[in-house]
Amino acid sequence: MKSYRAELWFEVPSRRGFINITSKVRRCLEESAIREGLCLVNAMHITASVFINDDERGLHQDFDRWLETLAPFDPSGYKHHQTGEDNGDAHLKRSVMGREVTVAVTDGELDFGPWEQIFYGEFDGNRPKRVLVKIIGD
Amino acid sequence: MKSYRAELWFEVPSRRGFINITSKVRRCLEESAIREGLCLVNAMHITASVFINDDERGLHQDFDRWLETLAPFDPSGYKHHQTGEDNGDAHLKRSVMGREVTVAVTDGELDFGPWEQIFYGEFDGNRPKRVLVKIIGD
Amino acid sequence: MKSYRAELWFEVPSRRGFINITSKVRRCLEESAIREGLCLVNAMHITASVFINDDERGLHQDFDRWLETLAPFDPSGYKHHQTGEDNGDAHLKRSVMGREVTVAVTDGELDFGPWEQIFYGEFDGNRPKRVLVKIIGD
Repeated sequence: MKSYRAELWFEVPSRRGFINITSKVRRCLEESAIREGLCLVNAMHITASVFINDDERGLHQDFDRWLETLAPFDPSGYKHHQTGEDNGDAHLKRSVMGREVTVAVTDGELDFGPWEQIFYGEFDGNRPKRVLVKIIGD
Repeated sequence: MKSYRAELWFEVPSRRGFINITSKVRRCLEESAIREGLCLVNAMHITASVFINDDERGLHQDFDRWLETLAPFDPSGYKHHQTGEDNGDAHLKRSVMGREVTVAVTDGELDFGPWEQIFYGEFDGNRPKRVLVKIIGD
Repeated sequence: MKSYRAELWFEVPSRRGFINITSKVRRCLEESAIREGLCLVNAMHITASVFINDDERGLHQDFDRWLETLAPFDPSGYKHHQTGEDNGDAHLKRSVMGREVTVAVTDGELDFGPWEQIFYGEFDGNRPKRVLVKIIGD
C-alpha cells in the first residue's frame, strides 16, 4: 500500500468564500502515483469546510445566503463568544457543509460524476488556513 | 490491496424520494471478495445524497418535510436559477444530508450497528442518476 | 495492509450531550500499530453523531441550542412517533452533525489541525450506545 500526504494553504480575503480546489487535488493525485484507492480531503480548521458540489457562481451565492439564514453572523449572539471569539456562526456553517470528502481513485483519476467539483468553504477568513490531502492505495 | 468499483443506477419517478440501497451495496461487497477494508458509497450527482439512517416510512416523511422547511423548492427564489435550472433547493438539501458514507468492512460484511441502512436520497428526480461504490482492502 | 477494529461504548446520562473521544481514538490507533492510513470513526446508532470541532463548552451550548432550533424535540410532532418512538428530532439532529469522520493517519498519529478534536454527539441518550473505530493502512 502506498500513501501520500500534502497540505494546501488558502487565504480568503474576506470573511466567507468558496474556492474550487479540484485541480490542486488532482495535482496531488498525480504526484502520489496512486492508481486505485481513496483520497481524503479535509479542512484542518474547524471554521472551514471541504465539500463537493457544482462550480456555479449563483449557486455559491445561494449557499452563502442560506447558511447566513440557518446560522447568522452575530458577534453578540453565541456563548462561544465569551472566549473572545466572534466566529460562532462559522462553526455552525461548517457543520452544515461538512469537514471532509472522500473521493474514489480509479485508474489514476478522481472518480467523479459529471458535475462534481471539490470546494474549500471559508467561514472565518482573512487568515491563512490549511486543507489536508491524504491518499492511500496502490 | 484489492480494489473494487461499481456504479448503481436509480431513477426516482418523482422529484424527491429515498431508496434503501443496502442490499445492492452488500452484493457489491460480496462480488469484491474483500474481507477487511473500507467501502465508500457516494452520489455521483450534486442534487442527490447517500446517507445512513433507519428504514422507517414515517421518518422518511419527516426528513422530506424538514428538508422542505430548511430549503424550500422555489423555482424563482434562487440565484442558481438564472442558469435556467429550477433545482437550487436540491443542492441545499443534499448538503444537509451529505454526499457520501464510508462503511467499515469487517470479516466480509458491512460493519453496521443494529438499525443502520444505506439510503439514496433524491432531491431532483425523474431522471436516471448514479451512485458509486468503491471498496478497498484485503 | 493491516486493519484494526474496536468498539467504544458511551452512556450519556441525559437526552443530549457531547463527549470528547479523541484520546480514546488515539489509544485505538496506538493499539493498531498502523503508521500510514485512514481511521474511520462512526456512530453505530442513527440518533447519534461523530464529528470534529473545537473542545469549547460555550460552543457546545451553541450547538445544542442551534440544533434544537433547526429540529426541535417534539413528542407529538413527527410522523416517526407513530411507531411509538419520541426521538424524531434526534434523527434530524444527527443528520446535521454527521454520522462519521475519516481521519488521516500519518507517522502513527491522527493527522490533525491545531484545534481538531473528535466528539461523540448524543441526541437520544440515557442508554449505552456504540462508536466504531476502523483503521486500515500499513
